Amino acid sequence: MTADAGPDPLPSWREGSIKRRLLAFVAAVCTPGDPAWVAPQERIAVFDNDGTLWSEQPMYVQLAFALQRVRCLVAERAELAHHPLVAAALADDIEALMGHGLEGLLELAAMTHAGMADAAFSALARAWLREARHPGLGVPYTGLVYQPMLELLALLRAREFRSWIVTGGGVEFVRVFAEETYGIPPERVIGSTLQLRYGEENGQPTVWREAVVDAINDGDAKPVGIARAIGRRPIAAFGNSDGDLAMLRWTTAGPGRRLGLLLHHDDDEREVAYDRASAFGRLDLGLELARRHGWSLVSLRRDWHRIFPTPLPQD
Amino acid sequence: MTADAGPDPLPSWREGSIKRRLLAFVAAVCTPGDPAWVAPQERIAVFDNDGTLWSEQPMYVQLAFALQRVRCLVAERAELAHHPLVAAALADDIEALMGHGLEGLLELAAMTHAGMADAAFSALARAWLREARHPGLGVPYTGLVYQPMLELLALLRAREFRSWIVTGGGVEFVRVFAEETYGIPPERVIGSTLQLRYGEENGQPTVWREAVVDAINDGDAKPVGIARAIGRRPIAAFGNSDGDLAMLRWTTAGPGRRLGLLLHHDDDEREVAYDRASAFGRLDLGLELARRHGWSLVSLRRDWHRIFPTPLPQD
Repeated sequence: MTADAGPDPLPSWREGSIKRRLLAFVAAVCTPGDPAWVAPQERIAVFDNDGTLWSEQPMYVQLAFALQRVRCLVAERAELAHHPLVAAALADDIEALMGHGLEGLLELAAMTHAGMADAAFSALARAWLREARHPGLGVPYTGLVYQPMLELLALLRAREFRSWIVTGGGVEFVRVFAEETYGIPPERVIGSTLQLRYGEENGQPTVWREAVVDAINDGDAKPVGIARAIGRRPIAAFGNSDGDLAMLRWTTAGPGRRLGLLLHHDDDEREVAYDRASAFGRLDLGLELARRHGWSLVSLRRDWHRIFPTPLPQD
Repeated sequence: MTADAGPDPLPSWREGSIKRRLLAFVAAVCTPGDPAWVAPQERIAVFDNDGTLWSEQPMYVQLAFALQRVRCLVAERAELAHHPLVAAALADDIEALMGHGLEGLLELAAMTHAGMADAAFSALARAWLREARHPGLGVPYTGLVYQPMLELLALLRAREFRSWIVTGGGVEFVRVFAEETYGIPPERVIGSTLQLRYGEENGQPTVWREAVVDAINDGDAKPVGIARAIGRRPIAAFGNSDGDLAMLRWTTAGPGRRLGLLLHHDDDEREVAYDRASAFGRLDLGLELARRHGWSLVSLRRDWHRIFPTPLPQD
């Protein structure tokens, strides 16, 4: 950074090699004349959401929403209580639910987030996010976004990057809060999808949500979803789990300067040290690939000065 | 428009009710305090491509590309010459090809635009568009964009609209020229798609195009594609054929001020008067829906002062 640089754009990142690398990457690709310079329209950055931009502990936030929705559903259709996913949800048996994998979670989402117009779903999810509180911490879920990542998003926005969320979560769920929370508009969210159907309902043209999983945006599907939606290969990718490795690999194998960054959830005091024992992957492969392909491994314990925007009970 | 308005932003549109309506709509939704004011992030406009932003006569431009590609394909795999679509293509029998409907055309696109990395396809299409000339007019196809629509896109851009292309054509094909030609970046193109597959090819992470049609973005699929990609209902929609009616209907049925516009290809001197006898629909339904829902019907003959950016032989 030059001597006349303004205030530190990443105050929640501790000084060290990771912060230096982030700032050097952004400076290089944004400086005309630098061999690494990239035209603004090619400055695409992609971010996983759960565990990368906000907390996924003790469970995915969308799963907490599904647990609430499932009770409404069973009140209307009691016979569903015998469905194994519904039974596990009613018993708050998170371990059993996670045992069904991302596919099972999305199946539960399909059952509980469908059978309505897309606008009706967005309104439901918005209302829930406003009212719901994290069970252990008593704060709204949108208070559990990672402050260092918010600063990174703001820095990239200021340097004419376009940042996208590429999530295994449901695209319509994430869109409900992404603009207000991250400054990322709905059209820059790529996620898992239910089938949609267009038709007239009571004379009103409507896009209707069917209770059928259409696409699971995880693993190899992430680069495919990016190619489909963006039509350009990103130059920077940020993730935290096995589901993000293909996206990181594809991004960082492109020509020119690239940045790959993998969050390592190793802070048991201020968050949860869990990524060596995650339900969907142990990150051992991620650590190996990070070494092999030169991705930055961010230790929450070591590299983040603070984790959440406002202090939490455990902070 | 106020008295201190600058130069006419739509010089290729003849004075009249259509031009007044376009300007009044843009002024109203962009004027703070106007009851019709719309926040910039909600100013979404969607445009069909073939026949709406550029000429689709005597055939879709992408079909002309497929006719060239099919010869390369048969040179490598002679047995394909017996496939009915390929045989019709080799015979330049456009009528027979159109008889297979959009589904058949996309099948031909799948056969001829796949089996390669997405980046390789883009390079092929870009090279073809640079070299190819319209058979009757001898100009590059990108010279056959509609000047009045370019002015409309520029006006909307200046007023903080985000304009999207929503095409039945292949998304990757349209992306190759949309940014340079229309000022619409790749991520704002929604189109028909082939299946994509991610994997390593010779140690390089690659998004590969499979010869399988994934989704046909026409008719009812257009509102679904918009909901999926944008996550917001547009406030203005522009089309010219049966395939655009659901998009126009969904757009204009939303709350607040809306604009729907249907191009009527009725100019046999400067273009081709064809839309009462189009291969994929006669527009009779469109004319009826335009009356019923208050869409503007643009007569190329009456409402456009000029059609193409530079004069053509028939201009």
